[in-house]
Amino acid sequence: MKSLLTTMAALLVAGVATAAFAADPTPVDLRKSALELFKPLPSTVPAVKDNPITAEKIALGKALFFDPRMSASGVFSCYSCHNLTTGGDDNLETSIGHGWQKGPRNAPTVFNAVFNVAQFWDGRADDLKAQAKGPVQAGVEMANTPVNVVATLKSMPQYVTWFKAAFPGDADPVTFDNFARAIEAFEATLVTPAPFDAFLNGDDAALSKEAQAGLNLFMDKGCASCHNGINVGGEGYYPFGLVEKPGADVLPEGDKGRFAVTATADDSYVFRAGPLRNIALTAPYFHSGKVWDLKQAVEVMAQSQLGEKVTDDEATKIVAFLDSLTGKAPEIALPVLPAETVSTPRPSGQVNK
Amino acid sequence: MKSLLTTMAALLVAGVATAAFAADPTPVDLRKSALELFKPLPSTVPAVKDNPITAEKIALGKALFFDPRMSASGVFSCYSCHNLTTGGDDNLETSIGHGWQKGPRNAPTVFNAVFNVAQFWDGRADDLKAQAKGPVQAGVEMANTPVNVVATLKSMPQYVTWFKAAFPGDADPVTFDNFARAIEAFEATLVTPAPFDAFLNGDDAALSKEAQAGLNLFMDKGCASCHNGINVGGEGYYPFGLVEKPGADVLPEGDKGRFAVTATADDSYVFRAGPLRNIALTAPYFHSGKVWDLKQAVEVMAQSQLGEKVTDDEATKIVAFLDSLTGKAPEIALPVLPAETVSTPRPSGQVNK
Repeated sequence: MKSLLTTMAALLVAGVATAAFAADPTPVDLRKSALELFKPLPSTVPAVKDNPITAEKIALGKALFFDPRMSASGVFSCYSCHNLTTGGDDNLETSIGHGWQKGPRNAPTVFNAVFNVAQFWDGRADDLKAQAKGPVQAGVEMANTPVNVVATLKSMPQYVTWFKAAFPGDADPVTFDNFARAIEAFEATLVTPAPFDAFLNGDDAALSKEAQAGLNLFMDKGCASCHNGINVGGEGYYPFGLVEKPGADVLPEGDKGRFAVTATADDSYVFRAGPLRNIALTAPYFHSGKVWDLKQAVEVMAQSQLGEKVTDDEATKIVAFLDSLTGKAPEIALPVLPAETVSTPRPSGQVNK
Repeated sequence: MKSLLTTMAALLVAGVATAAFAADPTPVDLRKSALELFKPLPSTVPAVKDNPITAEKIALGKALFFDPRMSASGVFSCYSCHNLTTGGDDNLETSIGHGWQKGPRNAPTVFNAVFNVAQFWDGRADDLKAQAKGPVQAGVEMANTPVNVVATLKSMPQYVTWFKAAFPGDADPVTFDNFARAIEAFEATLVTPAPFDAFLNGDDAALSKEAQAGLNLFMDKGCASCHNGINVGGEGYYPFGLVEKPGADVLPEGDKGRFAVTATADDSYVFRAGPLRNIALTAPYFHSGKVWDLKQAVEVMAQSQLGEKVTDDEATKIVAFLDSLTGKAPEIALPVLPAETVSTPRPSGQVNK
C-alpha cells in the first residue's frame, strides 16, 4: 500500500514520463506506453490468497450473494447494492440499507474487485473475504450478526450440503469465515473483459481514434499516475484534493477517508483511487456519490488532483477512453435458493438505533 | 369470477364428489380423479389477452422486471419482492418497500401467476399487465409515477431501441402501458413444471406413495373445491373462515379483502384462493403472512374452511403432496441493463407521507 510520499514520487515520475508521450502516437506506440501502466484482464478466474477456488465454492458463493435472508430484515442481499444488472453497484449516491438508513459512502462495483489492492474506499479490508463480512454486519446495511447468519444457513439442509461440498476438509463447514470465503470465490469470477483489453492484447481497431486520443491524454495528463494497473485504479491511496481541495459538496468534511484506518494525519482525506473499469455504468461518482456526469467527474479530478483545466475536447476524449473500459459481464444464471424451514430465524425489519 | 353462491355450490359438489374417492386408489384411478380437478402446465409460453408475446417483448420485460430504477428510490425492482431465487416472492410477512414502509398483504409468487383468474389477493387487477402498474405506483412499494417511469426509460437510448423492437407498430412505443405489457410478456414465461405435472401427464413414479395419499386426501377432504385448476388455486374467490373464522392473528380484522373491490357485503373477508404451486418455497402463508409452517397452514385451512380436524398423519401426507407442486424454474440469465445518462431522473429516497 502506498503512502503519501510514494504518491508524490509517483506523480513526479508521471511528470517526467509526460515528456515521453507523443501528441498523436500510432496504435503500436500507444499500446507500448499503455502496457507500461496497465494490464489486460486474464482469461481465467484469478487465484486469491488462502482460498482455493473450486466450482463448488463458486456455486455456494453465488447462492449466498443472491440470498436476502443473509440480512436481518430479509430484504437485502449482496446483490441489492452490488447489482449485477447495473454495473455491479446500485447507482445511488450512497446505498439505502436496513431501516431505510443511508450508508456513508458510494457503493463500489463488485466487478473486477478481486484485482483491487484492498477493499472499501479506505482499503480497510485486505481482500474480498474480509470485505464480505462488513456489510452483512453493518447496522445501516444488512444489520445481521455472524451467529444469526450461521443459524440461518444451518436451518436449511441444502445449504449444509453445499457448504460440505465447498469445504470438504472441514468438520464443521458452515461458518461465517467460510460464508465469506465462498462469496469471495464467486466474486473472483466477476471479471469483465472490455474493448480496452482487446486493444492492449493487440487489436488496433478495438478503440476508436477518439478513445485512443483519450487514452493518450489519460497517460499524458497524469491521470494514470493514480489510475493504473489492471483495474485502472484500485491499486493505491491518494489524497482527494492533492493540488486543490474540491468543495464540501463533493468532498464532505466529515469523511476523512483512510485516516479512520491508519490514524495518521497524512491520511486525512486519503482514499483508494477508484478502479475505473465499467465507470460509465457506475454513476454517481466519488466516495460521496455527488457527481452524476462522467465528464464533470473527469474535470473535477483534473482540477483537484492535477491542477489542470482540461478542455471540453480533451474531457470528451478521455470519456471516450473511459467508455472503452465498459466490459462484458459473465453470463450469470440466477441461482435457485433453498427454502426456509420451520427452524429458520425469522426476518426482522426492526431498527435498533 | 365466482360469487359466494357459486362458491357454496362448488363446496356442495365437492361434498358429493367426496363419496367417489376411494381410500387408497391406484395411481391410474387417482390420476383420473385428479384430472377432473387439475390441469398440467403447458410446455409452451401461454398466450395472454391483448398482448401478443414476442421474443423482443420478453427480453424488454425481463430488463424492466430487474430494473431498480423503475422505483422512485432506485432501490426496488419487481424482482425485489418477486425474487426469482426464492420461489418468486420475498419470504416476508408483508413486503418492506419505499421508506421502509410495510405493505398490507403478503407478496404472492410471480411464478405461474399468468394462470390466475386475476391478480392480487383480492383480484383487483384483471391480468398481469394491469397488476404490473400497481406496485410501481404504490406509495409503500416503489412510490413512482407513470410520468417518471417513462422519463427514466426515455433517458436511456438502449431502452428506446428495445421498446421500438418490442412494439414495432407504435409511433411512440415508450409508454407506461407498454411497460406493463412487456413485464406481462416476461412473466408469462415464468412457468415451473413440477412432479405433480409429471404425474398428471402419466408418470406414476413422479409422486411418492405419501404424496399420492396426500393428493387423494386433498381431493377427498374438499381442499380441491377452492384450490383447483391449473394453479391448484388462484381461480376463484372464497371467504377466509367459511366454516370457522380464524383468530385476528391470522385474519386481521382491518383487511376485508375483496369487499374493497366489489363493495358487496358478501365479499367481506373474501380472498382469491391461494394458487398452491411452489407453496413449499413461499412461506409465510395467507394474505396476512402470519403462518410460517406449511403443515400448520394446512391445519388452519382444514378447520376454518372445511370445519375438519386433520390428523397429524393426514397433514403430513397433504404437505407431501404440496411439496410435489414445487417446480423447476426456467433458467434466467441476468439481463445487462442500460446505463443512466445525464438526463435520467435522479433517484429519490424521500418519503412523502
